[in-house]
Amino acid sequence: MAVSKKVLASIENSSWIRKMFETGNVLRAQHGAEKVCDFSLGNPDVEPPAAFQQALRDVVAAVSPRKHGYMPNAGYPDVRALVAAQVGTEQGCSLTGDQLVMSCGASGAMNAALKTILDPGDEVIASVPCFMEYNAYVDNHGGRLVLAPSRPDFDLDVDAIVGLIGPRTAALIINSPNNPTGRIYPEATLRRLSAALLQAGKKTGRTIYLLSDEPYRKLVYGGAKVPGIMALYPHTLVMASYSKDLSLPGERIGYVAVNPAADDARRLIDGIILCTRILGYVNAPALMQRVVARIQGIAVDVEIYRRKRDLFSSALSAMGYEFTIPEGAFYIFPKAPGGDDLAFVKALQEELILVVPGRGFGMPGYFRIAYCVDTPVIERSFPGFERVMRKLHR
Amino acid sequence: MAVSKKVLASIENSSWIRKMFETGNVLRAQHGAEKVCDFSLGNPDVEPPAAFQQALRDVVAAVSPRKHGYMPNAGYPDVRALVAAQVGTEQGCSLTGDQLVMSCGASGAMNAALKTILDPGDEVIASVPCFMEYNAYVDNHGGRLVLAPSRPDFDLDVDAIVGLIGPRTAALIINSPNNPTGRIYPEATLRRLSAALLQAGKKTGRTIYLLSDEPYRKLVYGGAKVPGIMALYPHTLVMASYSKDLSLPGERIGYVAVNPAADDARRLIDGIILCTRILGYVNAPALMQRVVARIQGIAVDVEIYRRKRDLFSSALSAMGYEFTIPEGAFYIFPKAPGGDDLAFVKALQEELILVVPGRGFGMPGYFRIAYCVDTPVIERSFPGFERVMRKLHR
Repeated sequence: MAVSKKVLASIENSSWIRKMFETGNVLRAQHGAEKVCDFSLGNPDVEPPAAFQQALRDVVAAVSPRKHGYMPNAGYPDVRALVAAQVGTEQGCSLTGDQLVMSCGASGAMNAALKTILDPGDEVIASVPCFMEYNAYVDNHGGRLVLAPSRPDFDLDVDAIVGLIGPRTAALIINSPNNPTGRIYPEATLRRLSAALLQAGKKTGRTIYLLSDEPYRKLVYGGAKVPGIMALYPHTLVMASYSKDLSLPGERIGYVAVNPAADDARRLIDGIILCTRILGYVNAPALMQRVVARIQGIAVDVEIYRRKRDLFSSALSAMGYEFTIPEGAFYIFPKAPGGDDLAFVKALQEELILVVPGRGFGMPGYFRIAYCVDTPVIERSFPGFERVMRKLHR
Repeated sequence: MAVSKKVLASIENSSWIRKMFETGNVLRAQHGAEKVCDFSLGNPDVEPPAAFQQALRDVVAAVSPRKHGYMPNAGYPDVRALVAAQVGTEQGCSLTGDQLVMSCGASGAMNAALKTILDPGDEVIASVPCFMEYNAYVDNHGGRLVLAPSRPDFDLDVDAIVGLIGPRTAALIINSPNNPTGRIYPEATLRRLSAALLQAGKKTGRTIYLLSDEPYRKLVYGGAKVPGIMALYPHTLVMASYSKDLSLPGERIGYVAVNPAADDARRLIDGIILCTRILGYVNAPALMQRVVARIQGIAVDVEIYRRKRDLFSSALSAMGYEFTIPEGAFYIFPKAPGGDDLAFVKALQEELILVVPGRGFGMPGYFRIAYCVDTPVIERSFPGFERVMRKLHR
């Protein structure tokens, strides 16, 4: 057999998001692209801000030797310093460049961090619904992902998480604002989580690292704030990218920062730098490092997404769909009318509308809409959503 | 312990190239950067060609929607088609875009391919001297690197390779032109290798994949040609980057192509696409995909490297250093005078000259010079090389 057993199984059970993408291609070929309403992929439709375009032109025009050459695996020292200052401000904690490593997106950061931390058989907890690629990332490095339920309002269920902690528990992954729910975990919850993790770590005799995946931090609505987790729990690693807030997912640029108060912080950073190298990333793309360094704190206009959210939410509510209004990110995660997410998604496909079933996020009975698409596409989808609701909600 | 046992051991035994880099930083701080002659890192000093600069400006200026957004994990279809056509020409075999995946450099390509192929405990053979990062790449995915000696002229020792093949052997990695020797494996050797691998595969009942790492293919001197390995052995994967031939190592752009004649070729490609995603690369950087697609077949002016090679080679020869004149790449791999590569490297450091000991490539008793540096630095190093030769060669 050419392909490893694990990879073969993964090909055959390809991700739900990917399946929807392929279904979309078939539907587009059959019916024409303009007929299909595709809400399956979180590929931002808002163009990167003008400041990004200017920074890109400036960096391209600048003359400096070995501009596209190797730099230290952790990234350019000046870029690390600028990004660390911004992350420190967001996290309410003082951070310097040597506590941060530039990465190939948040997924590159997550893989480098997990490889650094995990011994074979170690466990990592995540709270469903969540981005299920975490499963593969943990498995890449010999670990096992353990899923905790969340509360009915999609807040973290701290007791459920603590109940899953054992001697093999190395880390907990959280993602706020959350994909797929748009939930921001409140500061009070994070304080309880922090106390509980410290206590559980004492019991197991092992520091439980908190990996905070924050690519949607700047995409929040109505003045909502994402609490700085580093100020609340010492053993924290924050990973993020510019994929969503600058609309650059194809450029693979992000970072991971280690709380200087974390146990063994220096060794974690050394490990992450090493793993960035030996996983074959080597370093984050050179040109984009320099570009994002120039526009720290800048994001796309979130009002554009807010209007799409409101448009979609009002329409779905009026049709009788049940969901919590997302506080951030660009997803809505309603209950599937009739209760069976696969049946619902299939019925929607007959209307040429693509969404991802909740089981793709570890939570059957729901579905995810990615509303980072053109407004006319959103409007065009409403009659289909309405018909399927009438058909399935009996 | 915060950091996994394996990563901790790797931090403590950091690579020789990395050690030299750190020694260089210490020496530069003590003596001033202009006093240190650093030949440790293969970071090209020749600027990317004018065609690259133009293509970069054009791609930046072009207006298209979601230009920095996600594309299929394998890369843009039009980019894959253009690159595949060029690789087909180089390899003497017909290749289409769906037989090629754009990657984050050759190391990203190598990791995606190895994860696709390897089951736990599988073995991969490489021929020393070689880039020892292969060891980490194979280990990342549960495999074990097995090292074969080469012939005295650094050609592949086909018998030695075949002698190491057993039921766990999944693949052989070759690298031509070779880092660190500059050797191009001759077509006759590759033909013998092909026949031997086919026969050995029949014996073990398992296809042995040949992973051909070719980032230096276009950096060859005196009209030398690198044979197309796909035309010689069916079960071949070719991986390469634009790091060396376009001087873009910091941008992380490359590809992997699968010979359509390889066993299970379609599944290999599917696996590589999946692994590109789940290893967290997701896709090769978007902007650079479009840039390199526009300048297929173009490389830096190799005459610049040829002159550096000739300058360095003549001087070292005159001093009594023993080595084979490199046919490609930008490294020279001489015998360490006195026979002890560590003692030699240490003596050179006292002259503020940095090279990498041969054991960093699995071959003690030699040392590697990376001559991709400014010509005045090369010239400035000659008295130091001369003194150390007189001191150690007794």
